[in-house]
Amino acid sequence: MKEVRFGLIGSGFMGRCHAQAMMAAPVLFQLEAGVRRVMLADANETLAAQAGAALGFERATGDWAALVRDPDIDVVDITAPNALHKPMALAAIEAGKIVYCEKPLAPNAADAKALMDAAEAAGSKTLVGFNYLRNPVVATAKEIIDSGEIGRVVGYRGWHFEDYMSDPSAPYTWRHDPEGGDGVVGDLGSHATSLARYLIGDIEAVCGDCDTVTTARPVASGSKEMRPVSVTDQMRALVRFANGAKGILEASWIATGRKMNLACEVTGTRGALTIDLERMNELRLHTVNQPVGREGFKTILTGPDHPDYAAFTPAPGHQLGFNDLKTIEVARLIKALVAGDDPWPDFREAWEIQRVIDAISESSRARSWQQITKV
Amino acid sequence: MKEVRFGLIGSGFMGRCHAQAMMAAPVLFQLEAGVRRVMLADANETLAAQAGAALGFERATGDWAALVRDPDIDVVDITAPNALHKPMALAAIEAGKIVYCEKPLAPNAADAKALMDAAEAAGSKTLVGFNYLRNPVVATAKEIIDSGEIGRVVGYRGWHFEDYMSDPSAPYTWRHDPEGGDGVVGDLGSHATSLARYLIGDIEAVCGDCDTVTTARPVASGSKEMRPVSVTDQMRALVRFANGAKGILEASWIATGRKMNLACEVTGTRGALTIDLERMNELRLHTVNQPVGREGFKTILTGPDHPDYAAFTPAPGHQLGFNDLKTIEVARLIKALVAGDDPWPDFREAWEIQRVIDAISESSRARSWQQITKV
Amino acid sequence: MKEVRFGLIGSGFMGRCHAQAMMAAPVLFQLEAGVRRVMLADANETLAAQAGAALGFERATGDWAALVRDPDIDVVDITAPNALHKPMALAAIEAGKIVYCEKPLAPNAADAKALMDAAEAAGSKTLVGFNYLRNPVVATAKEIIDSGEIGRVVGYRGWHFEDYMSDPSAPYTWRHDPEGGDGVVGDLGSHATSLARYLIGDIEAVCGDCDTVTTARPVASGSKEMRPVSVTDQMRALVRFANGAKGILEASWIATGRKMNLACEVTGTRGALTIDLERMNELRLHTVNQPVGREGFKTILTGPDHPDYAAFTPAPGHQLGFNDLKTIEVARLIKALVAGDDPWPDFREAWEIQRVIDAISESSRARSWQQITKV
Amino acid sequence: MKEVRFGLIGSGFMGRCHAQAMMAAPVLFQLEAGVRRVMLADANETLAAQAGAALGFERATGDWAALVRDPDIDVVDITAPNALHKPMALAAIEAGKIVYCEKPLAPNAADAKALMDAAEAAGSKTLVGFNYLRNPVVATAKEIIDSGEIGRVVGYRGWHFEDYMSDPSAPYTWRHDPEGGDGVVGDLGSHATSLARYLIGDIEAVCGDCDTVTTARPVASGSKEMRPVSVTDQMRALVRFANGAKGILEASWIATGRKMNLACEVTGTRGALTIDLERMNELRLHTVNQPVGREGFKTILTGPDHPDYAAFTPAPGHQLGFNDLKTIEVARLIKALVAGDDPWPDFREAWEIQRVIDAISESSRARSWQQITKV
Repeated sequence: MKEVRFGLIGSGFMGRCHAQAMMAAPVLFQLEAGVRRVMLADANETLAAQAGAALGFERATGDWAALVRDPDIDVVDITAPNALHKPMALAAIEAGKIVYCEKPLAPNAADAKALMDAAEAAGSKTLVGFNYLRNPVVATAKEIIDSGEIGRVVGYRGWHFEDYMSDPSAPYTWRHDPEGGDGVVGDLGSHATSLARYLIGDIEAVCGDCDTVTTARPVASGSKEMRPVSVTDQMRALVRFANGAKGILEASWIATGRKMNLACEVTGTRGALTIDLERMNELRLHTVNQPVGREGFKTILTGPDHPDYAAFTPAPGHQLGFNDLKTIEVARLIKALVAGDDPWPDFREAWEIQRVIDAISESSRARSWQQITKV
Repeated sequence: MKEVRFGLIGSGFMGRCHAQAMMAAPVLFQLEAGVRRVMLADANETLAAQAGAALGFERATGDWAALVRDPDIDVVDITAPNALHKPMALAAIEAGKIVYCEKPLAPNAADAKALMDAAEAAGSKTLVGFNYLRNPVVATAKEIIDSGEIGRVVGYRGWHFEDYMSDPSAPYTWRHDPEGGDGVVGDLGSHATSLARYLIGDIEAVCGDCDTVTTARPVASGSKEMRPVSVTDQMRALVRFANGAKGILEASWIATGRKMNLACEVTGTRGALTIDLERMNELRLHTVNQPVGREGFKTILTGPDHPDYAAFTPAPGHQLGFNDLKTIEVARLIKALVAGDDPWPDFREAWEIQRVIDAISESSRARSWQQITKV
Repeated sequence: MKEVRFGLIGSGFMGRCHAQAMMAAPVLFQLEAGVRRVMLADANETLAAQAGAALGFERATGDWAALVRDPDIDVVDITAPNALHKPMALAAIEAGKIVYCEKPLAPNAADAKALMDAAEAAGSKTLVGFNYLRNPVVATAKEIIDSGEIGRVVGYRGWHFEDYMSDPSAPYTWRHDPEGGDGVVGDLGSHATSLARYLIGDIEAVCGDCDTVTTARPVASGSKEMRPVSVTDQMRALVRFANGAKGILEASWIATGRKMNLACEVTGTRGALTIDLERMNELRLHTVNQPVGREGFKTILTGPDHPDYAAFTPAPGHQLGFNDLKTIEVARLIKALVAGDDPWPDFREAWEIQRVIDAISESSRARSWQQITKV
Repeated sequence: MKEVRFGLIGSGFMGRCHAQAMMAAPVLFQLEAGVRRVMLADANETLAAQAGAALGFERATGDWAALVRDPDIDVVDITAPNALHKPMALAAIEAGKIVYCEKPLAPNAADAKALMDAAEAAGSKTLVGFNYLRNPVVATAKEIIDSGEIGRVVGYRGWHFEDYMSDPSAPYTWRHDPEGGDGVVGDLGSHATSLARYLIGDIEAVCGDCDTVTTARPVASGSKEMRPVSVTDQMRALVRFANGAKGILEASWIATGRKMNLACEVTGTRGALTIDLERMNELRLHTVNQPVGREGFKTILTGPDHPDYAAFTPAPGHQLGFNDLKTIEVARLIKALVAGDDPWPDFREAWEIQRVIDAISESSRARSWQQITKV
């Protein structure tokens, strides 16, 4: 591939983030293929035309199906509302496109499996936007774990806490609709799970405890009419990994004061590391056998010695931000396409993540451990 | 009581810690009773005589039973090896003494109950040395929680991680003997549990997952002969509190790099706080409704405005240390005795803690939730 | 202005950074003018053609003078080596362009003044790339100071420490040539000074102490031939601000372990704040009159409530990176041009900064205080 | 010496701190001499009798001169108000005692010299209570510096910030009387200076800038009558060490929000370390030549591998507090006396410290560098 031609569906916050990544990736990375922003689809022609111009797309359409069918498009990039991910992705698969979909791919494992099966049957390349995995800090953590620097991993603590639902007077939204998934389990628990799977590997059993703290919310801001809420506000789970490590996974969207607290603590037999994405350019590392009296966790600031960082600046400690992670994601997608490789995390990985979080919700309902069968 | 007369059993590290607390408490606190160090008992007469002189006791004995029976002693203070706590405490109860025992009171809930029952039948005042609860930071956390400053508590994360067992070549010790309790569950899990109960209240159900990472250890340092180990190295548990809060409890003595990481994170509906005793003079606090753009966790350094701190220094931020917590414990004991109150945490509380950790071990074996009946 | 047409000189690390900012700014900000990347100039035609294509410029040239003269260009954006800033900027002023120049504008105050005078005589709009001032954390600090939230500022500590010159075997480079300025004083001291002036105001007197730690360096990597070095490795200065505040300014490029430690600590009569750009999304704030026992510095994570942040993501704590600061700089330039305002920091401000750092070097040589006359 | 017999003058906060240290030192350290609390002197007989009993002294007196003359006393320990240090110390020297005096020894270098000369003429052993130097973190820093682990020291930043004078309505006290010294320069600047001298060595030149922020204070709390204040609120100084290192020293007692911020940052040619006594059990250390991608500052928690820590607890990370530093000071005093060594920091060192801070005040008045001649 000499040129990767994108069709972007959606121009909200996440659409803009994708658009800037399409621009930045070729400038910052040494990509062997060009990037063309061919078409943007939005809810109607007017919106699409405005957004398409603003985001530098050649054409625009109010009909996403037209975008999906367009022969000049290689990658269908879906940033539309979650409920539309499934029909859009299926149509894109059917049209023979590479499908790049924002997370969550689907509200449950069954739907994720349907999409995965369709993609695999069609031989489609797929990518799901678990952008935090692209943080150089996370890549470095993986490098440390895989190299054995901290020995065999025996303990894992992973969590994603934010507080955007902590106000009980905030109204009922699509995030509270059980059709869209089990609340924070899908919204943030999926990030915590993707990180755990990426760093440690398959999870084979879980025992979750989920609860709803705000059991009714106003139907609209300021309204006195209340609508019951049943989806999870707080999720906690014991987890067992296939490699023998054990740990916990947690997620909450009512964690007052926490803003981007996707974090983990990995304990090995010969060291430990911690990450907290509220300080997304730092990794804390401990290894055994330090000199007497000189033992401690070191705080590593990412720099050009860490994966993907050098594309942004040659200066260490100068830091990457949230949008840069999407730029890395797009750059890696393009590199994979140029090399003929499969992008990752793909629909299969999204399904695996969804299986874990579905099992957590189910184990909470059943009040018992749930196995997750290796496929 | 005008004078509290102590008999101390044991003169190891913890015995010395108690002795210095007996000296410091009257000097630093405005106590209405004097403190007399009447007698010290140790393994034999020689040891006892030496230690007694070094620690400023009036008399010494190689026979702890003699100490327990001595009519000039009000408080029998037990810092002997754990296995001796039970016979010593029972004898002290029988002799009508106030019984002050280092933790763990007993290796399991049944033994703890036997001691509690004996003490309650005899009307004995008792105290167990959960010294970390005496940290002004912990007392401040309790004040914040009880006052409602962070709203209703909905989430709790508590853990105690250290790494003194992380070296797999470290030999088998009494800590690995299942007769003494379930490894780290009793050793550090009890601290995590005592903190959770103190701050939040009764725990009514747990689901634990415990494992042994180093399954055999040398019988002695450097030996090639190995002895199997079955007690827990890592403990994790889901917990449900009687007041509706949910959370997790964890403990590990193989947490490489962690030295005194007894910590908790408390989330309420209107705020959150965190403690980590590796920074034992700090508390992080968040509350909702801060001014726009000025929201954050504040880091509070303890000072004379916090419980018990002013006794040590009038200057804020000048910090307390580990031994100071024992001094507060002794000062509070004496104040309680002067006031005719019951010291706390008493044998009943130690039993309640032990019930929780026993339930965690049992739930791990059973791989299911365990209820803890309210008594 | 409906469209701002850029001519970029230079395509190194900083050129790429500018190019991505030109792309990202219109996508992320609601700009009322379009951005056109019209022409890129580099050292020769081949380089320029390659880079121009890679960075999305319409045309390319090996002759920067041609770019400067080109009638289709509004803004001449200079990211060429420092030694070329002066002739390029003068030519651009002469050609009637808006001049956007990377820092340092000039190696000394005299040269900076020549450029400022030329620009002001010609009525040219100018901008110098002090990107760190564009960090929302810095803008928030300014807001806090200007609003009086921390009272009257009485103390300031500012520094910029990095370690890229800490290896004494690193060879002599253009940075060590006194013609280019006084070493770290210009390189990092200028950032520390720009931050101090931005937050607090004019500096009216300084007393500096500068030294050279590595007094000779290899002429090339690995060479045994040494070349003497006379420029400053470490700068320290007492400073007095016109508003009565006093403080210190420091800079070092041999500060081992420090990577991006541009930091300040501002003390007012009613509070204090600190910034450290190694954690570039955090601000620590203290104010007096907090509730008893609840006093502390709060750690504020930037979010959409802080200047310019919302353009990048609506989610607080999700963080900006180094390149995002350049995007804000470009967005503000374009907003100023659309509004008919003067961009800032302009050549005059660059001259003021240079006057301060020249005075620091001079006061170090003279070993006495130096006044900086208000103009 | 088999027994060290103390006479303590003063029973305020600092007197109690000394008394507890006299009790704790023999218990916690393996001292070869006993400690006797022979006599306590206070402002009158009643006070002295009460305090003597409370602090466990054998006798008490309202006449400090009687204590000084008492033949049963080896060490005269002065914790009386600063203005009395001189007559008491002179009397104790004359009486042939070991003199242990709280800091500040004297309000200025001339008075300190008079005391030093008297002591040296009499061959008296002396000790001044610069307790922060006894922190294991500080001792470890010294060990790191002296061993060359961070190469040759080239930069030093030292400061002591607190905020106990930040409220402008707080009344005029003896601390504001210029007869007692130059405000914060003596009060906290002496600590910053003692730390700098201890870690780095002699200071040979200074250039200070001192100012008074609150220039008048109520004569009493709540009074409308104001009294002018001329002593320093904020001190800043450039310093040059005899070994070639350069740096800054600062002190402030109006640093809002800072409680015990005695801190330093030491940069060597091969590493760096930082200390901040608000986290008095931590040291941050960086060394060059760490593995690629694994470079960072490590945070070392003190433990039994660090000087004096093991006396308090065998468990690393369990932490020392403010009073423990005094216990170490007393233990080291006794060890020195047993060994026939001279205690340190002695009156000579106190004079050296005072010479530096006097030179800082003087250089601020003169607005010029001041040399400090090597004696």
